[in-house]
Amino acid sequence: MFQPVYLDHNATTPLAPAALAAMLPWLDGLCGNASSRHEYGRRARQAVDEARQRVAAAVGAHPTEVLFTSGGSEANNLFIKGAAASLRPGLVGVSAVEHPCVLKPAAQLQRLGWQLHTLTVDAAGRVETDDYAALLAQRPGLLSVMLANNETGVVQDVAALAEAARGSGAWFHSDAVQAFGKLPLDFRALNAAGVHALTLSAHKIGGPKGAAALLVDKRVELQPQIAGGGHERGLRSGTENVAAIVAFGVAAELAAAGVAERAQRMRQLKNRLESGLTVIGARIFAVDAPRLPNTSYFAFADIDGETLVGKLDREGFAVASGAACSSANPEPSHVLRAMGVAPEIARGAVRVSLGEGNDEHEVEQFINALRATVGRLQGLTAMTV
Amino acid sequence: MFQPVYLDHNATTPLAPAALAAMLPWLDGLCGNASSRHEYGRRARQAVDEARQRVAAAVGAHPTEVLFTSGGSEANNLFIKGAAASLRPGLVGVSAVEHPCVLKPAAQLQRLGWQLHTLTVDAAGRVETDDYAALLAQRPGLLSVMLANNETGVVQDVAALAEAARGSGAWFHSDAVQAFGKLPLDFRALNAAGVHALTLSAHKIGGPKGAAALLVDKRVELQPQIAGGGHERGLRSGTENVAAIVAFGVAAELAAAGVAERAQRMRQLKNRLESGLTVIGARIFAVDAPRLPNTSYFAFADIDGETLVGKLDREGFAVASGAACSSANPEPSHVLRAMGVAPEIARGAVRVSLGEGNDEHEVEQFINALRATVGRLQGLTAMTV
Ligand SMILES: Cc1ncc(COP(=O)(O)O)c(C=O)c1O
Ligand SMILES: Cc1ncc(COP(=O)(O)O)c(C=O)c1O
Repeated sequence: MFQPVYLDHNATTPLAPAALAAMLPWLDGLCGNASSRHEYGRRARQAVDEARQRVAAAVGAHPTEVLFTSGGSEANNLFIKGAAASLRPGLVGVSAVEHPCVLKPAAQLQRLGWQLHTLTVDAAGRVETDDYAALLAQRPGLLSVMLANNETGVVQDVAALAEAARGSGAWFHSDAVQAFGKLPLDFRALNAAGVHALTLSAHKIGGPKGAAALLVDKRVELQPQIAGGGHERGLRSGTENVAAIVAFGVAAELAAAGVAERAQRMRQLKNRLESGLTVIGARIFAVDAPRLPNTSYFAFADIDGETLVGKLDREGFAVASGAACSSANPEPSHVLRAMGVAPEIARGAVRVSLGEGNDEHEVEQFINALRATVGRLQGLTAMTV
Repeated sequence: MFQPVYLDHNATTPLAPAALAAMLPWLDGLCGNASSRHEYGRRARQAVDEARQRVAAAVGAHPTEVLFTSGGSEANNLFIKGAAASLRPGLVGVSAVEHPCVLKPAAQLQRLGWQLHTLTVDAAGRVETDDYAALLAQRPGLLSVMLANNETGVVQDVAALAEAARGSGAWFHSDAVQAFGKLPLDFRALNAAGVHALTLSAHKIGGPKGAAALLVDKRVELQPQIAGGGHERGLRSGTENVAAIVAFGVAAELAAAGVAERAQRMRQLKNRLESGLTVIGARIFAVDAPRLPNTSYFAFADIDGETLVGKLDREGFAVASGAACSSANPEPSHVLRAMGVAPEIARGAVRVSLGEGNDEHEVEQFINALRATVGRLQGLTAMTV
């Protein structure tokens, strides 16, 4: 089968061989229901407990602070709506560059009487301090600012933001789905700074689709969004996806253990990529901001991002565009719009997100293909003028 | 490894070999994000679409009526809360014997101004017609009555209940998690009778944990409970669990194709089991009601169900007790209490739920072990009197 070069690791990652190996015994043969009180049930329960310990250890949390969910989207919804349901309706603040699975549940709160404050960001995609200070002065009940952005890779100083919010009485959540495995992550330290909850997702770190976690300070009162049999301390019901949870535990351990070395390798590859991009004339977004070591987001004048992604796909390179891919008529990225990027430029956005499997050769190949493709597209544009 | 005889298929089932085989290519190697617009993404999208067609075909639904979720609990919560959020607060009716993942979200609606009517059941566990008629007269907005009960196996006449509710204006949902694969299931026919939504769960039918579906009539307006990237027609966001969904498709096809033959085999095994149970002196719950072909629920005088399950476990038989296993101090089954069974008898409840892997020899072995164990326990009880 045709195997294009995969440069879209922020969308999802291949399952790590060790994670797959850990998962298989729970698929092949009988995997009990972890709530069952017999041998098969106890084995499943023990596997879930061990995975919980692994995930907790990987990010400096206590196992009782780990709530397993089916995905990062569910974990973000659980925090936003679950914490809100335990508070009197008030003010919820989220950054303008959050993933839709934070923005939309925050917007849904408005129907329950909450007021939504969307924090502005500067041209580099970082939360604007003045707007943030103004929000804090209004004593919000809930705050959510992501650790790293999935499109731009821009890293927020979440510890500082949380510190500033201490004493405001707000619960502070951060979506760490893209940060985990790419930056060192320490829930204990972040919690000490005032971060009360973090979201992780297995399939972004070499784990399987179907498992994720909300790490949550036990002082936060949550209402379950999936209510039922009382799993996960009553906060998330449903038969545990044992195989996926086990594999998540292994992937989390690997993600944390290799983070420094991986980040360095990714950074080198990214520098090489971005030198090439600059030579071809790309505009790299947020190039001067602190960014994830694996993510480059860029555009070429007068070239549509969707078109470029399509051409590169046919050339054998899997990359992402900046458009919201769920709609038939793609809108330019809300992240770039929030950063003040003009729509006609934002429409050109293309994202490369590197992973462990990539090497220098692939980056060179990609740059060559990109140069040729961009040349052809710009030639076409020139001819139509 | 010690492999007890598994007699707890209503809790979860072993993954069917064909489902595992279909799943593996999506775990071993790169499985794209089904929203990605490149080769890997398109392959994943196509696999999800095919699985949707398989699930739909297996239950006589249209693929656009299938919403994938992470589990049956999530699907039940999505219907109850998602449909309620699109209606003016009114009256919600659920049977007293529903699974907690229907009972609890229905109870949560009360905080949003809904009134909860818990439908009484008769001694056989079937919804009482008088109470149901009284509820309908009050024009409920939402109704949920399960097709088959997970503990007793009792089957409700859902088509008749839905017919009666036609014209009441209510949306009628039925939890078919335990019925699917054990009884013929036809969403088109049920929908014609007035059923607007059905819940299925993969791990109860030889599929994997991590995939399930809400089948829903498109006239029902739902609000997403997991909001975000807009997956599943905007009704359930989150990166699709491609491998689990693919395996669910295969398992659903097998479950539907083999249902008549499987039901007959199960019924024969169950009859054999229940002859044995009667000889030993068990009281079989709802013995005269229409029941699933694979489920026997019973108790012995003066023997605690938890204790019996523990003893049988050590003898090499995996069965379930009737107690809510999430709590440290188990309450007797809410299902039996609703049927008017005295608490001291309900506390004795033990469930055997047969599956494809079981045979007559295992049933004989089980009856023998049960006879001996019950004899010993009753001897002990007698001595303490
Ligand atoms: C920053 C961020 N948060 C949340 C999510 C959602 O995670 P999941 O796909 O596991 O639902 C994603 C990825 O889609 C993401 O990039
Ligand atoms: C009748 C019934 N409904 C719903 C569920 C929940 O399904 P799941 O375990 O997939 O969340 C179960 C099983 O636990 C069940 O037996």
